[in-house]
Amino acid sequence: MVNVAIIGASGYTGVELARILCNHKQIKLTAATSRQYANQPLGQVFPNLRKMTNLVCENLTTDELCASADFFFTAVPHKTAMNIVPDLLAAGKKVVDLSADFRLRDVSVYEQWYQPHSAAEFLKEAVYGLPELYRKEIRTARLIANPGCYPTSIILGLAPLLKAGCIEPQSIIADSKSGTSGAGRSAQVGSLFCEVADGFRAYKVGGTHRHTPEIEQEINAFLPEPVQISFTPHLLPISRGILSTVYAQLKPGIQHADIQHCYDQMYALEPFIRLLPEDTFPATQYVRGSNFCDIGFKVDTRTNRVIILSAIDNIVKGAAGQAVHNMNLMCGFDETAGLESAPFFP
Amino acid sequence: MVNVAIIGASGYTGVELARILCNHKQIKLTAATSRQYANQPLGQVFPNLRKMTNLVCENLTTDELCASADFFFTAVPHKTAMNIVPDLLAAGKKVVDLSADFRLRDVSVYEQWYQPHSAAEFLKEAVYGLPELYRKEIRTARLIANPGCYPTSIILGLAPLLKAGCIEPQSIIADSKSGTSGAGRSAQVGSLFCEVADGFRAYKVGGTHRHTPEIEQEINAFLPEPVQISFTPHLLPISRGILSTVYAQLKPGIQHADIQHCYDQMYALEPFIRLLPEDTFPATQYVRGSNFCDIGFKVDTRTNRVIILSAIDNIVKGAAGQAVHNMNLMCGFDETAGLESAPFFP
Amino acid sequence: MVNVAIIGASGYTGVELARILCNHKQIKLTAATSRQYANQPLGQVFPNLRKMTNLVCENLTTDELCASADFFFTAVPHKTAMNIVPDLLAAGKKVVDLSADFRLRDVSVYEQWYQPHSAAEFLKEAVYGLPELYRKEIRTARLIANPGCYPTSIILGLAPLLKAGCIEPQSIIADSKSGTSGAGRSAQVGSLFCEVADGFRAYKVGGTHRHTPEIEQEINAFLPEPVQISFTPHLLPISRGILSTVYAQLKPGIQHADIQHCYDQMYALEPFIRLLPEDTFPATQYVRGSNFCDIGFKVDTRTNRVIILSAIDNIVKGAAGQAVHNMNLMCGFDETAGLESAPFFP
Amino acid sequence: MVNVAIIGASGYTGVELARILCNHKQIKLTAATSRQYANQPLGQVFPNLRKMTNLVCENLTTDELCASADFFFTAVPHKTAMNIVPDLLAAGKKVVDLSADFRLRDVSVYEQWYQPHSAAEFLKEAVYGLPELYRKEIRTARLIANPGCYPTSIILGLAPLLKAGCIEPQSIIADSKSGTSGAGRSAQVGSLFCEVADGFRAYKVGGTHRHTPEIEQEINAFLPEPVQISFTPHLLPISRGILSTVYAQLKPGIQHADIQHCYDQMYALEPFIRLLPEDTFPATQYVRGSNFCDIGFKVDTRTNRVIILSAIDNIVKGAAGQAVHNMNLMCGFDETAGLESAPFFP
Repeated sequence: MVNVAIIGASGYTGVELARILCNHKQIKLTAATSRQYANQPLGQVFPNLRKMTNLVCENLTTDELCASADFFFTAVPHKTAMNIVPDLLAAGKKVVDLSADFRLRDVSVYEQWYQPHSAAEFLKEAVYGLPELYRKEIRTARLIANPGCYPTSIILGLAPLLKAGCIEPQSIIADSKSGTSGAGRSAQVGSLFCEVADGFRAYKVGGTHRHTPEIEQEINAFLPEPVQISFTPHLLPISRGILSTVYAQLKPGIQHADIQHCYDQMYALEPFIRLLPEDTFPATQYVRGSNFCDIGFKVDTRTNRVIILSAIDNIVKGAAGQAVHNMNLMCGFDETAGLESAPFFP
Repeated sequence: MVNVAIIGASGYTGVELARILCNHKQIKLTAATSRQYANQPLGQVFPNLRKMTNLVCENLTTDELCASADFFFTAVPHKTAMNIVPDLLAAGKKVVDLSADFRLRDVSVYEQWYQPHSAAEFLKEAVYGLPELYRKEIRTARLIANPGCYPTSIILGLAPLLKAGCIEPQSIIADSKSGTSGAGRSAQVGSLFCEVADGFRAYKVGGTHRHTPEIEQEINAFLPEPVQISFTPHLLPISRGILSTVYAQLKPGIQHADIQHCYDQMYALEPFIRLLPEDTFPATQYVRGSNFCDIGFKVDTRTNRVIILSAIDNIVKGAAGQAVHNMNLMCGFDETAGLESAPFFP
Repeated sequence: MVNVAIIGASGYTGVELARILCNHKQIKLTAATSRQYANQPLGQVFPNLRKMTNLVCENLTTDELCASADFFFTAVPHKTAMNIVPDLLAAGKKVVDLSADFRLRDVSVYEQWYQPHSAAEFLKEAVYGLPELYRKEIRTARLIANPGCYPTSIILGLAPLLKAGCIEPQSIIADSKSGTSGAGRSAQVGSLFCEVADGFRAYKVGGTHRHTPEIEQEINAFLPEPVQISFTPHLLPISRGILSTVYAQLKPGIQHADIQHCYDQMYALEPFIRLLPEDTFPATQYVRGSNFCDIGFKVDTRTNRVIILSAIDNIVKGAAGQAVHNMNLMCGFDETAGLESAPFFP
Repeated sequence: MVNVAIIGASGYTGVELARILCNHKQIKLTAATSRQYANQPLGQVFPNLRKMTNLVCENLTTDELCASADFFFTAVPHKTAMNIVPDLLAAGKKVVDLSADFRLRDVSVYEQWYQPHSAAEFLKEAVYGLPELYRKEIRTARLIANPGCYPTSIILGLAPLLKAGCIEPQSIIADSKSGTSGAGRSAQVGSLFCEVADGFRAYKVGGTHRHTPEIEQEINAFLPEPVQISFTPHLLPISRGILSTVYAQLKPGIQHADIQHCYDQMYALEPFIRLLPEDTFPATQYVRGSNFCDIGFKVDTRTNRVIILSAIDNIVKGAAGQAVHNMNLMCGFDETAGLESAPFFP
């Protein structure tokens, strides 16, 4: 039994971590921090958790935190994470950080897209927590940089084709659509029900979203020459779910069967990837509440492009679920522990 | 390990039964029937179940059915159920019937609200499967009439007050609001997205909904003289969830503390009832995907009425989850087996 | 051509006033105030209004306001309105106030439910702007207290039956459900998309909502002895619309035809009331974007109650549309000017 | 005053035509046909139209139709339209056909994507009813092929750039997202609320949607050599609205200002196009209920692509509104007659 703490429990990622960990048999959730909701039971802050946990939100010092648990999920904003994680590591703890602070290996790229980094010495050590790509490294890591939601959906869709060299990498266009939970739980007019419901829009158009360098980092890991891609995020009037529609030009001669083979090779044994049959495409409502990534594709012979469709629940596979998957690997648990529930539909 | 079959797996109740049973450790789902989807994998009919089950929908004879399992959920329309259940019982099987066919103990009431009954001899034997009221009888039953969704929410809200005689029973008004999954999965214009979304309406106004006699039957079980109540169902633009707002005149002298005491007495140990603190009221989004019934109330001293709010997930506590709860009781399993997951929010 | 100003243009009522007034042929919208968005074009604050108006939000003094227009809509919070309206009246302007500040004729009731009133001398003069009840008084008024959204839906449903004495007034229970635009446009967690979507809840349960005294004031205007009623508001996951389900005990001998007669008598010529045929009930999606109030009812002979269903668009008939209707009456325009558009569906 | 008939009034396009035409001052709606709802008042079939029109749905012969009106909107499925339109033209009527039957000028392309054409002799005569491209031809036409919803949004976004030769046409990728009203009002499981709500998916992936040749026809009208493009439609959980995100490689040297200039040149005077300021992007909720097409774009200098965002209400600018715009041009009315209302938000 491992004692686990959630630092930053009052956001949507925090509550989802708590939801998943409530049913995890091999860990004990021993602390949940929140400055805003300090001293309030977690089941009061998030009434879905009533009767599921007795945990009370606390505002703890680093020492108190370290006394409370052996394993930590840091679900705080970027910049805050880099101030907490080094102390936890110094105290011998294992950490899955759900912020962006340790995802980019190159500090200059980080500082170009975010702000100065105060703990850059950990960037090389941190393992990018996409188990389908870095399972081996994750098992022995003490610091995991849990991937962003958009990057998870896009990289999983592209990796097999990049690895096998089936596509022209500089032609990649990722058109992604996310549920509103991705915008977080802070009170802002743009996230109000009446602003989002019954509507749809793009945002951060033209390569300006901060997930862009993260996606490119992982794409370029497969390539001899780095490329830059187009990535456009959109806001869906749903709470949970990301669907990425990814376009790429096929290399000469590549056909449907070649692509199918790439996916089969790489993902056949993956517990959380579901490859869809030909001419079947994913939908966010079929992965809701689960850690699955559903992937389908279609070769458009008219234009010689492949269109890859990839669906995840952004706060499970795109955040809390993948974080628990990483913990399972780091702690030697069964990979699917706590993540066995089927997606709920409708 | 008990072998379990779902008869009528292609509706929203069927898929939810399958979703829950996929994660139930003490049973094995051995058959799922559907005439419409015969020979299609269940995970193709309901893509959320991909990789969760290998079951293929079948169109089975009674003999084949009886050979396939020991325990049956009949999730078929009323009138169809009465044609199937007697054969299953005759073959020594246990059955939880999710239709209305065995819920009304008085055949004349059934025939007034539905149509002639061809298996009325089982009406007295069938146990109304509301564990909070009939736990003891359920444990030894072979046929459970699984309650309707609206009745579950309303009866659970009223039972403690009726039992203790706190309210004037003839004053009861139940104003209930249900998600659209309650309308089933048949293709009809009134259930189309564009007809339901961004809207709200009442239907079956004025005591004409078929759940009315079911609610009255269970209310009147607490009363020396039978009463008739007002029940108005409404259609919410959500998939899952029922909220019932129930009004009743208080008997003289009854105060907040008396009512709180009634609820505490009856429900303190119930695994699936969550009594909310004073001035806190339930919301459907906090029970979504779970078997919980959340109950809150308020005494309006200006009008001497109590207003009871009760929320359930209509396809879990209002259908499939309660059915599994009943199975757990009938089979001697832990009551919460398969139903441990926390509600998901958002 | 009357020059018209909107004071408080940055809320949902403000933008709806602007939307309606854009297409009103007999007025000219000459000013729109907003402290928060001062100097921003209204079409930038609310992009639906791009190309519809060149108005820029301003932060104006009272003198500047008075110079800008002859007719004013004050769409500011209660307590703010009472500080602005007297100056406008003193300058000889006509005002439709959309706040609660002038709705309650009895200052002690106002101060019990809100806070001290600094302009109580106008309470007797202000006309409650429900044209179906006070058309004559509205025509000659200089200050209209535009009704609340819930009261509009409930009072219109009850008035004909109260006037004719068909129902027991102390038995009235109003169970109302409102879209989220009623919560306004301020940034608060409870109004976020993820908190509201795919959910449903009651709030201000037990006679604590501030619309209660307003409803009772208008009900009691029909009665020899004042009564208190039960009113429960609920929050719908839609942007626009209120449906009120109102229950009342019938007086002895009253039947369907009597009630139909009451409605026909009072509303047959009303331009914005649509009485539905027997066994037809309103839905919010059929009044969306329009100033209509749709009313249907059903006599439940089992319980001798009438159930009245009344649907409005809360920001049109429940706010901005009714305000324009009042302006039309006050200015001698055609009653339906600017309000002719059909509801949009789907 | 022109007498106008809607053939096929019972779909979502039909009801929207009726909604718009109800408020059109220069026409009189004299007939609305529907086999399914024959003899039912239109205001009963679509209760939003109660009190707006007295029209009763009829099942009329061609002769009766011709006697009823001078101008016709055919809002029937493709294949049905080609059986009706020739008779109307032969009778000297003007027709706006909202089906696909007369959109493709090349009969072999039509027959490749649809089925054999029985009225191919009208293909050359029919004018593609996109007023921004074909205003002059529309004014004198007797048969308009009203554009598809997706093509409208995509072609309007691309036309200025194609005309000016700013982009590499073979690089065009159109990723479009549509509200569910686009799927029509027929009762099918895939359009049920519970299948669509809280979800998102692509469909007809890989150049298989029938709007593909229509888009290509209009794109290729600007080009010396025909190209084929990628078009992926997606289903949004909203009723109304299309957002198209269109990607194209810029020709060498093309910059933001060049593109802005193209749009300004072509659309500055267009009544229904709203060009958004730099770094502002459209959202479907800001065009809802209106005939506007909102267009924004961003040059991504990292990849040398332009990303064009274009939003319309699919049943207004994408169907009924554009059809009325065409009628206005054909009849010499003011272009915006009946289409003056501002979009409604929220």
